[in-house]
Amino acid sequence: MVVGLGPGDRSYSAPAAITAIETADVIVGYKTYLNLIEDLLVNKEVISSGMRKEIDRAKAAADLASEGKCVAVVSSGDPGVYGMAGIVLELVEEQYNDKNIEVEVIPGITAATAAAAALGAPLMHDFAVISLSDLLTPWTKIMTRIEAAGLGDFIVVLYNPKSHGRPNHINTAREIFLWHKDPMTPVGIVRNAKRGEEEVIITNLKEMLNHPIDMLTTVVIGNSQTKIINGKMVTPRGYQL
Amino acid sequence: MVVGLGPGDRSYSAPAAITAIETADVIVGYKTYLNLIEDLLVNKEVISSGMRKEIDRAKAAADLASEGKCVAVVSSGDPGVYGMAGIVLELVEEQYNDKNIEVEVIPGITAATAAAAALGAPLMHDFAVISLSDLLTPWTKIMTRIEAAGLGDFIVVLYNPKSHGRPNHINTAREIFLWHKDPMTPVGIVRNAKRGEEEVIITNLKEMLNHPIDMLTTVVIGNSQTKIINGKMVTPRGYQL
Repeated sequence: MVVGLGPGDRSYSAPAAITAIETADVIVGYKTYLNLIEDLLVNKEVISSGMRKEIDRAKAAADLASEGKCVAVVSSGDPGVYGMAGIVLELVEEQYNDKNIEVEVIPGITAATAAAAALGAPLMHDFAVISLSDLLTPWTKIMTRIEAAGLGDFIVVLYNPKSHGRPNHINTAREIFLWHKDPMTPVGIVRNAKRGEEEVIITNLKEMLNHPIDMLTTVVIGNSQTKIINGKMVTPRGYQL
Repeated sequence: MVVGLGPGDRSYSAPAAITAIETADVIVGYKTYLNLIEDLLVNKEVISSGMRKEIDRAKAAADLASEGKCVAVVSSGDPGVYGMAGIVLELVEEQYNDKNIEVEVIPGITAATAAAAALGAPLMHDFAVISLSDLLTPWTKIMTRIEAAGLGDFIVVLYNPKSHGRPNHINTAREIFLWHKDPMTPVGIVRNAKRGEEEVIITNLKEMLNHPIDMLTTVVIGNSQTKIINGKMVTPRGYQL
């Protein structure tokens, strides 16, 4: 089972995710995520690993499942959005396909909609989700997508907007958006959405870089209809009120 | 409170959503959604209305909240994705702004990631969410977005892919995708994702119209990397396994 815990607060974890963890013989996950469920790990076999050890975690899980164990690979958010679901399925279906392992993906609330809820209602129109991490996707391809999203007047949700290794991608992304979007386009910056110490900033494309952005942040960039109403970021759906 | 129940099965509803409904004095919602939570409505004031009565529902909720009542406006999925969050915020912040009403949006698992989980792991790369309903958005604008999503090699999730009023939009969308996507591009069709009688079809752009598609269906169209592995739809994230 590849299990999404949602944004972080237990009150946003689906009962199906908690049941999966309780049912599993072994829990596999990145340390930071396992800390979110420490209370559920009592008397469990736990395999914890560091960041960027996705392949190790997936292989450990597949090996244990081959032995007949029920394994839960745990992450925050939705494991099907840039998460562990892909690598686990690839590995199991391509390299362990003689082992008769069944994989179930248990979805969770993903950062895009957790951040949107914190901001108001920015995702009432068509939107694009783009990760600015170029660890596994060429930066040129990401830039092409940013431009296509601008051309299509999509609302855009940026995952992994900034890290020490790529501090300037967010600047370039902003410049590309400015080819198609007004500088006054509302921008929402949410840190730790629905995860304890939530921080919400509502700004615009012109000013957005004057605010702190890091790996725990989700950035939502409006479309041509998005507006700020009493401090909430809203893209009107188009009803005549 | 604008509350998302997630895809439909209670095991995918966040505890925060259930708590909101239990706390509220009044529950407002479209009949079909209220049926999902019948057991929670005992001894509650309930305002139920038909489809396309979004403005009536939002006004009823705002009126009741003005009187000091705690109101939960309930829907399936995430109310921040084409849902009731926008209209409630617009109405409250623009027309009831002297009433001191506080609006909280409680996110849920949206159809895009519920359907993705049923299919495998198609959303491992950047993706676009597009509704084919032109009730509130001009069809020309939707077509522009479909083309932009094709240009950007996004995975695309189609909401409201077909209804009696617009049976052919899905055909046109498919034609536009074929300008940029290979006919063999994997397509997943999920009906009632994580909602009881889930039906999953994995096909491709060439063949997709030979399968039933309706308003309860979510359609996921792959990008240039998406493949079908042992009956699962997977967009490899790019790890070297």
